[in-house]
Parts: sequence; C-alpha cells; structure tokens
Amino acid sequence: MSIHSVLVTGSSRGIGFGLVQKFLESDKVGLVIAASRPSATSELLTIKNKKLHLVTLDVTDDDSIVKAVEQVDQIVGSKGLTILVNNAGILQSYGFTDEPNRDVVNQTLDTNITSPMMMAQYFYPLLKRAADSQPGNTFSSSRAAIVNISSILGSIQLAQSSDNGIKKLLDYSVSKAGVNMVSRILSKDLEAYGIACTALHPGWVQTRMGGEHASITLEECVSKLAPSIMSLTQEQNGGFFDRELKAIPF
Amino acid sequence: MSIHSVLVTGSSRGIGFGLVQKFLESDKVGLVIAASRPSATSELLTIKNKKLHLVTLDVTDDDSIVKAVEQVDQIVGSKGLTILVNNAGILQSYGFTDEPNRDVVNQTLDTNITSPMMMAQYFYPLLKRAADSQPGNTFSSSRAAIVNISSILGSIQLAQSSDNGIKKLLDYSVSKAGVNMVSRILSKDLEAYGIACTALHPGWVQTRMGGEHASITLEECVSKLAPSIMSLTQEQNGGFFDRELKAIPF
Repeated sequence: MSIHSVLVTGSSRGIGFGLVQKFLESDKVGLVIAASRPSATSELLTIKNKKLHLVTLDVTDDDSIVKAVEQVDQIVGSKGLTILVNNAGILQSYGFTDEPNRDVVNQTLDTNITSPMMMAQYFYPLLKRAADSQPGNTFSSSRAAIVNISSILGSIQLAQSSDNGIKKLLDYSVSKAGVNMVSRILSKDLEAYGIACTALHPGWVQTRMGGEHASITLEECVSKLAPSIMSLTQEQNGGFFDRELKAIPF
Repeated sequence: MSIHSVLVTGSSRGIGFGLVQKFLESDKVGLVIAASRPSATSELLTIKNKKLHLVTLDVTDDDSIVKAVEQVDQIVGSKGLTILVNNAGILQSYGFTDEPNRDVVNQTLDTNITSPMMMAQYFYPLLKRAADSQPGNTFSSSRAAIVNISSILGSIQLAQSSDNGIKKLLDYSVSKAGVNMVSRILSKDLEAYGIACTALHPGWVQTRMGGEHASITLEECVSKLAPSIMSLTQEQNGGFFDRELKAIPF
C-alpha cells in the first residue's frame, strides 16, 4: 500500500463521488476522506467501508476549511495527507452576450481558483508531513501531491467562443485557466518539499454539471482518472493532462 | 487619421499615463479618453490638449462603468470607440507561504480579470459602432479593438515560483493568466463583429507598481507599446505579445 491517504473535495456526487468509490476499491490507498458541503445529500452515507471517512467542508468558507484540517489531522495521523484532490467547483452558464454580472463571475473565480489555492495553503502542513514521512517515495522524487481537477476548457491555446452552442462558458473557462496557473506555480513553490502539483482534465462527463449531452459516462471517466491520480510521478509535476495523462497545452 | 478614439483605464499614472501622452502626440489618433478613479491625483489635469478628455472611472464599480459609457458615448459620437485599453490593475504581494487571505486574492481577481471583462461587455455597443462605421479598415479585417494590458507573469508555460525573490506574485500571476483567457475567448466571440482582442505585456516598468528594481523606464515602455497598439492587425487577434508585438506563449 503506497498511498496512505487521499482527500477528495466535492465528493457528494459526480466525479468526486466516483473518485471516492475507485479509491475505496483500490488496494493502493489506505484512507479515503470524502469531503462535501453540509447541505449536500449524498450516497456517501450508504457506503460501508472502514477506509472511508466523511468530512464536512465548504471550500469557499475559510472557517470550514480550518475545521476540516483539524478533523483530517486526526484521521491521517503522523503519516499526513498524501494526496489532496481539489475537485469541488461550479459551472454557471455565462457568456459575453449576457447581461454583465460581476457577482456571478467573481463567485466562479472564488470557487474554482481561490478555493483550491486556499485549500493548498491550509492543508500544506498535512501534505508536508506526508512528504516528510516518505523518504522512499510514491511519486519518484515527490512524496505527496495536490491534484486540481481542471478542464480542457481552461486551455488558452485551444479556447473557443464563450458560447459553444450548448452552454455559455466564459467565466468557467477563465477560472480553469486560472487554476491551471495555480497548479503550475504551486508545483514550483512546493517541489523542494516533495509535494507535486498537477492539473487534470477529467473529460466531459455525464454528471449534473456536465449535463446529458456529455460525451462520456462517470464510469468511463473515473475508471481512468483514479488510476492516473494514483500513478502520478514527478514527470507530471506542473503539467496539465487528460484523464489518461496525455498532455494538454496551456 | 486612422484611429478615431482611444480610451485608457488607470491613466492617472504609470503605464496608463504614459500611453495617454503618446496617443496625444500621435497624428494617427483623434480623441484620447483618459479614465481614472475619482481619488487619483494626476498630472492629467496639467495637460492642455483639445484631443484629451478626462473621464472618472473605477473599473471595479459597475455603476461607475455605466456612467463612463454614457460620457464616452457623448465624446466619441457616431464613430464610436475605436480602441479600449484595459490598463487598470493591481499588484498585491501574495505568495504561497503567506497567511491564507481569500479577500486579497479575490480582490486581485476582481480587478484584473472580472473588471476588464465587465469593461468589454459594457463598452461593446461603442466598440461595435466604431467597427460598423469603418467598412474600410484600421485593423485589416478588424475595425475596433480591445487591448488588455497583461504580463509575462501570466504565461503559464513560463511560470516561476510565487516568490521570485523581489515580490510574491501568486495572485497577480494567476490574474494575468485569467485575463489572457478573457482576451482569447473575446477574440473568438467578437471576431464576426470586426472587434479584435489582444493581450499585451508592457515589460517590467519603473512605475509605482513595478518598483525601482524594474528593468525599463516608462519611456522605454510606452515608446514601443503605444505604436504597437496603434498598429495592431488581425494577425494579433487572440494573441499574447510583448510591447514590440513579439509573441509570448500562453
């Protein structure tokens, strides 16, 4: 068993829920911490598995993050938190031709950019502890990791019009370019401490966020994404990849 | 005279002020609209030039933007606003190892990402009017333009640690990656309407923001940046360039 503990935010449904299931099934993972907002109704409660720990967390609320850090500290103990998966995010349909709405855009940026940044900062001591406890290493020279669930819509090079014909995705796309930059800078900041940081595009998935027109099922997504997260190496540090670790241009 | 009107935000000092001076000197530009916050003390008041129009504008305040649009509408008339230069921005020193501060980060994202987006949305009718009034064209197939003053620090490919040894630039760098994405998507959204959108890196300039360690003087910056803005063509639409229009990777 090479991965002591994994925490997944936004785990009450969709990709977060699917990742939790895959991590629970894997022999490689010791503890699975499923974090979700207090209001989120969830199938998580129906899972019976000693590896699973539920934690209440609203990533947009600093007090909530601080309390979650205390709880996770107790759960993971001296071996720390090996992998933090910043999966929680929002998609609000917003395009250039819509009525200007600063609050909608700022809410998307707060949730999808600032919150993963805050999560990384608050959980850093637990990630550092994991890295320090593994001089032999999980991730080649990295021993702990932050995974930011991004989107190919955050690729500036590949960007399309804000109205792609299905949803208007201006604020969402900008937020994912932003979180790619967070990932990239953190990968530089944390390299010396044995903590890697990577941005992953899960695909366009049939979830409440992705909608019914999405191109792949949740199972098609997480059956690839979870193993990719578990097999990250130093090679992926600071990069942007799809669920099969194929590189995507920034 | 090929450029009917140019509006520059954040024009009370620094790069904005320097750009206004250069546009006033140029025979190519008809009207120069210098927009700045009400509180900003400025040398703008000392300039005597019939081409110059001062407008009060806080880009983080929607009411202020709406009022500015009304004023600018009167100034530019039937030929509309040819070029909008989103120059206003903030740099707050913030790095990963600082105490987590969501408000600081969100303020940077609001000012440097959301505000240029709002400016583009609110000023769109005046830009569209400029584009429509010039079937013969200033910018090859584009007839009006939005220029977002970005930074090479917003290049995800070239990103460094958030502490570059002089200032901590995590939130600033993320905000500039974000506004690069705004530029890119708007270039797609607006192409059909004859409005181009481009992100420009002015260089590291000796201004209040850039600090005394910066590598170039304001004159070295704007003597290149202003002519580049005046000579933009369709070729630069959707791209990211330095002050001499040399491409920078996203």
